[in-house]
Amino acid sequence: MTSKMQQIVLASRPDGAPGHDNFRLESADMPTPGDGEILVEVSHMSLDPYMRGRMDDAKSYAAPVPIGGKMEGGSVGRVLASNVANFAEGDHVFGPFGWATHSVADARMCRKLDPTQAPVTTALGVLGMPGFTGWWGLNEYGRPKQGETLAVAAATGPVGSMVGQLAKAKGLRAVGIAGGAEKCTLATDTFGFDACIDHRAHATVNDLRGALKDACPDGIDIYFENVGGKVLEASLSLMNPFGRIPVCGMIAWYNAGGLGADANGEGLTGPKLWRTILVNFLSVNGFIIANHWDRFPDFVREVAPMIADGRVKYQEDITEGLENAPQAFMDLLTGGNHGKAIVKVN
Amino acid sequence: MTSKMQQIVLASRPDGAPGHDNFRLESADMPTPGDGEILVEVSHMSLDPYMRGRMDDAKSYAAPVPIGGKMEGGSVGRVLASNVANFAEGDHVFGPFGWATHSVADARMCRKLDPTQAPVTTALGVLGMPGFTGWWGLNEYGRPKQGETLAVAAATGPVGSMVGQLAKAKGLRAVGIAGGAEKCTLATDTFGFDACIDHRAHATVNDLRGALKDACPDGIDIYFENVGGKVLEASLSLMNPFGRIPVCGMIAWYNAGGLGADANGEGLTGPKLWRTILVNFLSVNGFIIANHWDRFPDFVREVAPMIADGRVKYQEDITEGLENAPQAFMDLLTGGNHGKAIVKVN
Repeated sequence: MTSKMQQIVLASRPDGAPGHDNFRLESADMPTPGDGEILVEVSHMSLDPYMRGRMDDAKSYAAPVPIGGKMEGGSVGRVLASNVANFAEGDHVFGPFGWATHSVADARMCRKLDPTQAPVTTALGVLGMPGFTGWWGLNEYGRPKQGETLAVAAATGPVGSMVGQLAKAKGLRAVGIAGGAEKCTLATDTFGFDACIDHRAHATVNDLRGALKDACPDGIDIYFENVGGKVLEASLSLMNPFGRIPVCGMIAWYNAGGLGADANGEGLTGPKLWRTILVNFLSVNGFIIANHWDRFPDFVREVAPMIADGRVKYQEDITEGLENAPQAFMDLLTGGNHGKAIVKVN
Repeated sequence: MTSKMQQIVLASRPDGAPGHDNFRLESADMPTPGDGEILVEVSHMSLDPYMRGRMDDAKSYAAPVPIGGKMEGGSVGRVLASNVANFAEGDHVFGPFGWATHSVADARMCRKLDPTQAPVTTALGVLGMPGFTGWWGLNEYGRPKQGETLAVAAATGPVGSMVGQLAKAKGLRAVGIAGGAEKCTLATDTFGFDACIDHRAHATVNDLRGALKDACPDGIDIYFENVGGKVLEASLSLMNPFGRIPVCGMIAWYNAGGLGADANGEGLTGPKLWRTILVNFLSVNGFIIANHWDRFPDFVREVAPMIADGRVKYQEDITEGLENAPQAFMDLLTGGNHGKAIVKVN
């Protein structure tokens, strides 16, 4: 075993979109697991939009990454050394190992994986946090009913594609929004969306609203919110009475600094948003999936068989090498990825 | 019986705050009840903030009042003539009689009142639509729990005072917001709020936020929304994780034209509002009570005894004469009333 490991730390806080100088690749001594801990060699790490929030020093549901601190995130890997009875050397494991080649972690925060059931990388996407986010948000706050219409952006991402496929399985019309013709084809042909709108081909809110209206002739009953910005603005005006909006992200606004600016949501003032909620009797629920892990076993029980028999499909976008994680993350924030963003580390 | 009646019609649509020239007092022939209808002499009519919305030609949950049409609203009165079996001459009745001295109405839209149980005017306020709005919104969407903190504006109005008193009865800390020292004293001394903030003494959002923070040392778990504007902006930043916001009105913004303008909500952009919902896992539900009349009997069953034994108090602000309704309505929109706004018509 090498005595050194590599990790990426937060070099400085971004002002708007992150750049390379916000990250720094460092070499460090291989950590030693303490009581109750395991040492893991990471094979694949996840890149997710929420990580952008951790780079800011703003009040949020999680503490920011400190300057000089390791970038946080979920990863999969194999146990190199264990100080607990329920993990053994060689076990495949998911845990909060961050942007690093190796990591120690509290074993209670880790979950053993069975590579014969599904590829271990699925624990980062379709069978992990993003897939679970889609499943929980749709069922708990979306309350889907057969015959209704659902709209979701980032339709080919790991959350959006889960939401769309589950909605279809429940008999809803599923309309996706994605960036570029290629993603739209992926949404309809692979993930089974009834339609997918290319938001890049509809640059203004009005254009996008028109395209969405054509794709949603009966209006929108569930707008699953993961992007904010102009997609939110276009969708809002199409919401049906008693519509539901689960809110798990707003990536279009993550780079908008303190969010005081109306970046990408030109006409969407607070009063307009509030009035739409009132006059359409909307139910809007913000959530992060971290508060609901107690339901994770139910999710796996329902969705794992759907993946196994092909009812739920997934797509991964794998970048090689830890050193390329910052670029892959920047691409993710601007929609440059195709499917679940993953970095192969070892 | 006189052969003429008087009514107030919408003369023109207001641009911002309504003025006298938006209303016109008219004389008309006494209507004759048709099949299934009753003719009523109105004694008291209700003035409510939602009526402002009906004056605009904007998409909303109810059709706008047409130009030249009678202003809509609920009233109480006595039956002069009846074409249905279950109403007799002399019966006390509540119904959608509008701004008028007399009216015919579909008997199915009317409700008989027992003046020995409670004064008939309570059917316009504490035992009517506003009280029911407070009861339903608090219980269904507020989900109050003992020990939590609730904030509500227009604390001495018929919705706010109901919400505050019910919250106190359930063991919550209830903090009101109202305009002027006199109303604040009414809120604490009569309605039993733990504290009441005078928003006129705290003109900026920051001032108001500071005062609210002092009054809510453990943050806000339920913000019952009936005003919008700077109270919303100040309250939002104090919301606790998993907080609930029932939204039944936004009177501060009713005069803001198309609501594209950020009237009275200077810093509250769409992105900021949306982000707060996400990072605090808030549950925001818009509603109008008209969709929930099936629960009205439950409301009366629970709250009527609380009024009878003094656990729930109420206050009415009665203006004399139909011709004074427009001025009383304008006063209501700027907080000039003290208690439930009612016009004595006959």
